[in-house]
Amino acid sequence: AHRLISPQLLGPALDRPKHIHKGDLGRLLVIAGSPGKTGAAAMASMSAMRAGAGLVTLAAPQSLCPVLEGLVIEAMTTPLAETQSGEIALSAREAVKMLLAGKSALAIGPGLGTHEETGRLIQALLLECPVPMVADADALNLIAQNPTLLKRAPSPVILTPHPGEMARLTGLSTNEIQENRTEVAREFALKNQVHVVLKGANTVVAHPDGLVCINPTGNPGMASGGMGDVLTGLIGAFLAQGLGPERSARLGVFVHGAAADLIAENIAPAGYLATDVMSMVPKALAGVWKNA
Amino acid sequence: AHRLISPQLLGPALDRPKHIHKGDLGRLLVIAGSPGKTGAAAMASMSAMRAGAGLVTLAAPQSLCPVLEGLVIEAMTTPLAETQSGEIALSAREAVKMLLAGKSALAIGPGLGTHEETGRLIQALLLECPVPMVADADALNLIAQNPTLLKRAPSPVILTPHPGEMARLTGLSTNEIQENRTEVAREFALKNQVHVVLKGANTVVAHPDGLVCINPTGNPGMASGGMGDVLTGLIGAFLAQGLGPERSARLGVFVHGAAADLIAENIAPAGYLATDVMSMVPKALAGVWKNA
Amino acid sequence: AHRLISPQLLGPALDRPKHIHKGDLGRLLVIAGSPGKTGAAAMASMSAMRAGAGLVTLAAPQSLCPVLEGLVIEAMTTPLAETQSGEIALSAREAVKMLLAGKSALAIGPGLGTHEETGRLIQALLLECPVPMVADADALNLIAQNPTLLKRAPSPVILTPHPGEMARLTGLSTNEIQENRTEVAREFALKNQVHVVLKGANTVVAHPDGLVCINPTGNPGMASGGMGDVLTGLIGAFLAQGLGPERSARLGVFVHGAAADLIAENIAPAGYLATDVMSMVPKALAGVWKNA
Amino acid sequence: AHRLISPQLLGPALDRPKHIHKGDLGRLLVIAGSPGKTGAAAMASMSAMRAGAGLVTLAAPQSLCPVLEGLVIEAMTTPLAETQSGEIALSAREAVKMLLAGKSALAIGPGLGTHEETGRLIQALLLECPVPMVADADALNLIAQNPTLLKRAPSPVILTPHPGEMARLTGLSTNEIQENRTEVAREFALKNQVHVVLKGANTVVAHPDGLVCINPTGNPGMASGGMGDVLTGLIGAFLAQGLGPERSARLGVFVHGAAADLIAENIAPAGYLATDVMSMVPKALAGVWKNA
Repeated sequence: AHRLISPQLLGPALDRPKHIHKGDLGRLLVIAGSPGKTGAAAMASMSAMRAGAGLVTLAAPQSLCPVLEGLVIEAMTTPLAETQSGEIALSAREAVKMLLAGKSALAIGPGLGTHEETGRLIQALLLECPVPMVADADALNLIAQNPTLLKRAPSPVILTPHPGEMARLTGLSTNEIQENRTEVAREFALKNQVHVVLKGANTVVAHPDGLVCINPTGNPGMASGGMGDVLTGLIGAFLAQGLGPERSARLGVFVHGAAADLIAENIAPAGYLATDVMSMVPKALAGVWKNA
Repeated sequence: AHRLISPQLLGPALDRPKHIHKGDLGRLLVIAGSPGKTGAAAMASMSAMRAGAGLVTLAAPQSLCPVLEGLVIEAMTTPLAETQSGEIALSAREAVKMLLAGKSALAIGPGLGTHEETGRLIQALLLECPVPMVADADALNLIAQNPTLLKRAPSPVILTPHPGEMARLTGLSTNEIQENRTEVAREFALKNQVHVVLKGANTVVAHPDGLVCINPTGNPGMASGGMGDVLTGLIGAFLAQGLGPERSARLGVFVHGAAADLIAENIAPAGYLATDVMSMVPKALAGVWKNA
Repeated sequence: AHRLISPQLLGPALDRPKHIHKGDLGRLLVIAGSPGKTGAAAMASMSAMRAGAGLVTLAAPQSLCPVLEGLVIEAMTTPLAETQSGEIALSAREAVKMLLAGKSALAIGPGLGTHEETGRLIQALLLECPVPMVADADALNLIAQNPTLLKRAPSPVILTPHPGEMARLTGLSTNEIQENRTEVAREFALKNQVHVVLKGANTVVAHPDGLVCINPTGNPGMASGGMGDVLTGLIGAFLAQGLGPERSARLGVFVHGAAADLIAENIAPAGYLATDVMSMVPKALAGVWKNA
Repeated sequence: AHRLISPQLLGPALDRPKHIHKGDLGRLLVIAGSPGKTGAAAMASMSAMRAGAGLVTLAAPQSLCPVLEGLVIEAMTTPLAETQSGEIALSAREAVKMLLAGKSALAIGPGLGTHEETGRLIQALLLECPVPMVADADALNLIAQNPTLLKRAPSPVILTPHPGEMARLTGLSTNEIQENRTEVAREFALKNQVHVVLKGANTVVAHPDGLVCINPTGNPGMASGGMGDVLTGLIGAFLAQGLGPERSARLGVFVHGAAADLIAENIAPAGYLATDVMSMVPKALAGVWKNA
């Protein structure tokens, strides 16, 4: 009882009429980064640009912004209040609310760390975010402390756990999850009324209405640090462009794998980097639209 | 009553005789950047190098210079006094005047922010800049507070608004502008005796004598953050090389679009970055000269 | 009495089953860097990613971390306590032990400097490292002060000296070593029960059981700063992926040379950089596996 | 009475026997950089790596080192004492002497600034440098204050002025120099017993024995900031590899122009950057050796 994701299932290309301008193509806010994990924040942000988001703003702990300004040339950065150990502080809440005011989507989590204050900020955001959001990585670990909040989110939420993060979210073991990937994702999505992207070979995309889709793209060379950050950026970009959570989640995982497959087939089956996948996204996305 | 920009209209290639040296190819001052928007400053500066400017100096808020020095390898940077929130301060006025002394053109605006002090600096510069200038982005928003100053500028001025910025400059709505792009640009150029580059599909270039040109190059993939910063750098570079404001404005928009078209046709129709366009400028410019 | 390394000797490709994830592909800790030598630390870390390590963490002197965060996008960084002159301090010992807890291998040495405190830290690590390690560059110079510790190491150790470092380790002259490369490496490996990679044309790989292998790949264009840092990263990555010290050492030197040979044959015989070799690793490794 | 530089005149390829190691290929010290001109320092250093120097150390004002460490991955950096305004201070003299002890050549000048203290340091270095040196850019302007020191230099000195710098060195006007390039360079070289590389179309290389060579490579696209910094790095690299000042100067200018010609012919006639030329050096150098 699931469908295979294909260009046809993904539907026609996002319309880019002649007079379109960057403001029409979404304003994405990325909240990411903590000391030692700036790369994750940069990759999520730049991947969103590669997926065609018009404007991307990266909000990160203030002391990391100088490094990040050197990494995200076409995106903007904005500093957030930080804890003594450098993670995003709860006191950033009002600033984040103001940043969200003009945005069309939120991507949160890459390299965020697991500080208790950051956790409380995320829980607050879950309950008041006015735009669709995708949450990944450390954001999932922080949400796992109180997953019942998910049902109270006023906007669509996409979670993108790998099996270990899914274990923390569900209380199941990784083995239990891997033996029953489709069912576990479906149940969690139904119960918490969120969209679940359970990563791994044949990524499972489960929707809150019980529909489950399976992704056929991707290859074992993707088992490498940073690949998840790229996926978060892609899904965030599609949300920001108004594709809706169902299409955004499916298109994100399909293009992510397709970009990696282009590299695996043409360059090398492994040892390619997450930033290589990021750079291949425009070509992969063009291929998807062409075959839709 | 407008002309279509073509290589023929742009005229013969800028002469590069055998003994030319970098000092003959213009000295451009770029004034740009504020916290979170260093990429815009870097892209404007490096785009000018890609358009053949001999020497480029980027003047930016002093605390951003360490980051910028890592981004603009072939250009030089110089620190300006900054406000408490990190924008260029009014007290930088004398330093800027001294920097302008040896320059052949000024590009101002990318990522500048909208601090009131920066606005006063720009207004002062408008009235005393000894070389032709191109103003974009936040500089336009600051000029919009007092557009009557434009007429008093002693040197040629090119403004490069997108429709939203044009709305702030004219007091019209974006819709009114988009429905009547040619006329709005022509009237503003005539009334304020400036050159107007009204961006968007079929960019309009209006000159102070009432002549209007329309640009045929470009594609919807350009609806992405940073593209305008690249254009500012290109026009600044042509001004610095002595092409005059008419040719500089037209050549800038034509090459900018042509570079993006090379990418859209050969790599992917969207998801390319402003820095990709920047890198393609030499090839696009060679194509223009060849067909002139 | 030695064998020539060949794809056949290296054995079948590391299995990457469909469901593999980054955690299965090793967690490598890199301890590297000192002021002026951050590039070495970055290259070792990123080379490990290029060799397919799932997760790489670079532990470096804390004041260098901002620079390193801009260089190692897909790897993580973690700051270590440092001496007044900026090298890793002995007081980092507990932090390093905690970092090692979740790791599958250690690569230590690139750009480390030769501070006495760093030396004591390395000697302590030798005696308590719970995972296989590769030691290079300054780590070798620090080990050379007390090589008898090697025999007491609880985990496999690979040393990767060039002839000058081998001289310091053995007390022989460089000439004595170069005239008798195979024997010197074999004896040191036997006596100290370590794996020795004696670099130079036809790198010698000597194992603690007396077996010696000779590497046929590589070219004189590799005589350039940073090449050794790349090798350290490769060997570390293979150790982290569980290939064992024999295969890791042999595969590391073979792929390192093969990647450089691809560049020498296709681009230029010299003047290529260590980072060029690093980028060619995935292709070279694919070639090795294909011919295994 | 001059010769045209050709691969034949440049002589056979630098021998790279199988057992060569990086220490055999020269240890170059680069002294360069001041605030706003870090790119010049980075390009000179990395160009030397591209020209095959075994080991390159960049000595720069201490507060610029963090930025430079992010730019010169394969080279090492070392901090020098600096003036209040950030240029290299006279008090760096002892440190520089110690750095020179183990080196085989010195390249000095790119982006150095013209602080009086830096000038005194350069004059002191002229009189005590134990290895051949190439001086460019601001170093020339500082030497111009007292060119009679040149004759007292204990080691070979190559100066690489453009016509404006040559004017400052000789007291002639730029016009006088350009009308009589060969003679002016020859006379200065004879009188001051240095090697002179007078840049511009058909760069003139004049030796202290009166011999003058003319370079046929290069194109007008090279009239762009940073090209001279690359040349300094190339000549420094050849000096460090022991080619002697005559061959180093000639080979440097020939390869520099040949690399730019490869780009002009294959990519675009202008708008390429100094770092593009730098990346093309290995291929250009291979072409020279092949035709020697």
